[in-house]
Amino acid sequence: MARMSGRAPIKPLLRVLAGESLNRPPWWLMRQAGRYLPEYRAVRAKAGDFVTLCLNPELAAEVTLQPIRRFSMDAAILFSDILLVPRALGQRLSFENDGPKLEPLANIVAVGKPDIAMLEPVAEAVRRVRAELPDRTALIGFAGAPWTVATYMVEGGTSRDFHRVKTRAYRDPSEFSALIERISAVTLDFLCLQVEAGVEVVQLFDSWAGALSPAGFERWVIDPTKRLVAALKARFPDVPIIGFPRGAGLLYERYAAETGVDAVGLDTAVPPGFARDRLQSRLPVQGNLDPVLLVVGGEAMRSAVADVRAALSSGPYIFNLGHGILPETPPEHVAELARLLSEPTHAT
Amino acid sequence: MARMSGRAPIKPLLRVLAGESLNRPPWWLMRQAGRYLPEYRAVRAKAGDFVTLCLNPELAAEVTLQPIRRFSMDAAILFSDILLVPRALGQRLSFENDGPKLEPLANIVAVGKPDIAMLEPVAEAVRRVRAELPDRTALIGFAGAPWTVATYMVEGGTSRDFHRVKTRAYRDPSEFSALIERISAVTLDFLCLQVEAGVEVVQLFDSWAGALSPAGFERWVIDPTKRLVAALKARFPDVPIIGFPRGAGLLYERYAAETGVDAVGLDTAVPPGFARDRLQSRLPVQGNLDPVLLVVGGEAMRSAVADVRAALSSGPYIFNLGHGILPETPPEHVAELARLLSEPTHAT
Repeated sequence: MARMSGRAPIKPLLRVLAGESLNRPPWWLMRQAGRYLPEYRAVRAKAGDFVTLCLNPELAAEVTLQPIRRFSMDAAILFSDILLVPRALGQRLSFENDGPKLEPLANIVAVGKPDIAMLEPVAEAVRRVRAELPDRTALIGFAGAPWTVATYMVEGGTSRDFHRVKTRAYRDPSEFSALIERISAVTLDFLCLQVEAGVEVVQLFDSWAGALSPAGFERWVIDPTKRLVAALKARFPDVPIIGFPRGAGLLYERYAAETGVDAVGLDTAVPPGFARDRLQSRLPVQGNLDPVLLVVGGEAMRSAVADVRAALSSGPYIFNLGHGILPETPPEHVAELARLLSEPTHAT
Repeated sequence: MARMSGRAPIKPLLRVLAGESLNRPPWWLMRQAGRYLPEYRAVRAKAGDFVTLCLNPELAAEVTLQPIRRFSMDAAILFSDILLVPRALGQRLSFENDGPKLEPLANIVAVGKPDIAMLEPVAEAVRRVRAELPDRTALIGFAGAPWTVATYMVEGGTSRDFHRVKTRAYRDPSEFSALIERISAVTLDFLCLQVEAGVEVVQLFDSWAGALSPAGFERWVIDPTKRLVAALKARFPDVPIIGFPRGAGLLYERYAAETGVDAVGLDTAVPPGFARDRLQSRLPVQGNLDPVLLVVGGEAMRSAVADVRAALSSGPYIFNLGHGILPETPPEHVAELARLLSEPTHAT
């Protein structure tokens, strides 16, 4: 579990990541800087291309701060994208209506020399956000975990069943390992750049962890994550790392036990009782309201929020969704969520 | 666990479903009558429309038998489709390159009166297959579980994240319950029709069970499955039911314990050790080679087959994939799999 050196942290998110249980859980929402906000859509329209927006420090900082101004979450998460790593590795990247498109990776060994300088605008965005954030609000940086980034690089975009990337991984594991290591090295540089610029927490998104067989999960999710976490810890021992192995299911417990992450993000399918008994006994947990309930709002949302808080608030717990906030979410539902979360879990 | 009344069953699949452990596990493959076979593609081209093929007894029987002729699996699974149930409920259905398309369901209460007569050609296909199958080969019928069928009916096709159907289920649970009950009633009729015509085992495909929150899983997967299983058991107590809650993850154990199914299908992500310790102690299990390994073949496939057999062959176990066979699978890899499975698990 993360222990902060020096003075005790005062930001609620950092207190929980250091192992404290708070009666009012700190909260943030995955993709909170995003399309459900009209002010985000306005900036996005002005910026044009999505990648351009990620690499424009002024605009990236602006959209990072937008949800904090409206809802005062306990953390801002840097507006960025996990596919900046393939971009730094020389793979052409664009965003179309149905998601990201990368040029197909014909020879996965021939990935280019990384262009880390390309990522420098992200550091500038971090510095700008830090200068503007309220004192109690933590700043989270992030990257994709190596397996998930590899899926995009090999599939050329999102995939339903990951046949191409799994075929390559199973057919030639040593070639695929080489790709994973290239990705890991750039990811480490990218995360160090973010921490040096001022992010206080890092989240690793392994969005497609659930696509693998148990043997594949061990080799392509657990092992690379463990190595990346160790390398980041060697440089920045005090920066907590939240791992989010979405879809890990029956392998959540091994992920929490073996990767060295300081906290684990729960996807929508994780039963809160399991999270309390088998994960939270080991490390802080974060999650896992179904984002659809934030679209629906009303009593369905209120009772689900109460249920997850009741299950998890006796240990270190960060409220979040189990997946990114949906574009069709009414912002007033987020405002109501903020009000709900401002009340203590247990009457005192 | 299923107990067969009357004479002891002799077909290996039925023996395992009755609780026996066999040193050479019976096997079949999900979607074994499918596009990886050139002779299937020839029939499909002749039949034209996919729905037409499902409702043509002669051709449906022919493609059901094709893989048995080549590979002598221990079971044939009727060539059919889970979306015949929405079709019987009056929803227009077509198959395009990227999957099934159903006309959007504007008012989910206004689902039409079911047209069970439309499904009669399926019974004729069952009779034709039974007449041709070798004595040792069991015939499996199937249907989609109500939740999975509802996802297609509301989303209008496959979906990445099931926002539409989940929004409707969360927003108006009683309306959605009414839809689930309409689906369940037709599904029961459809399964009874198959059993009366000669299928000996039934599999319930809940392909999108993993999309739900734990509360949703209990309400829309476990409860409707339990009711459907009980209704089918009331009519045909001796017909074993295999439940396949794909993606159930941490809820696999509850599904196995609470739905009343006689056996449980394991998806690719289920660790065989977990299946042995927590599921197979309760009921027979079936699965779960990653279909990508059947595409890759060679040593990667052989060692994975050996691993899953080693883990599960001490209890009642049916070999299968963890998901449907992929169209790009070389038939010769299936032939090698058949050879591997013809060898005993443990040297005697």
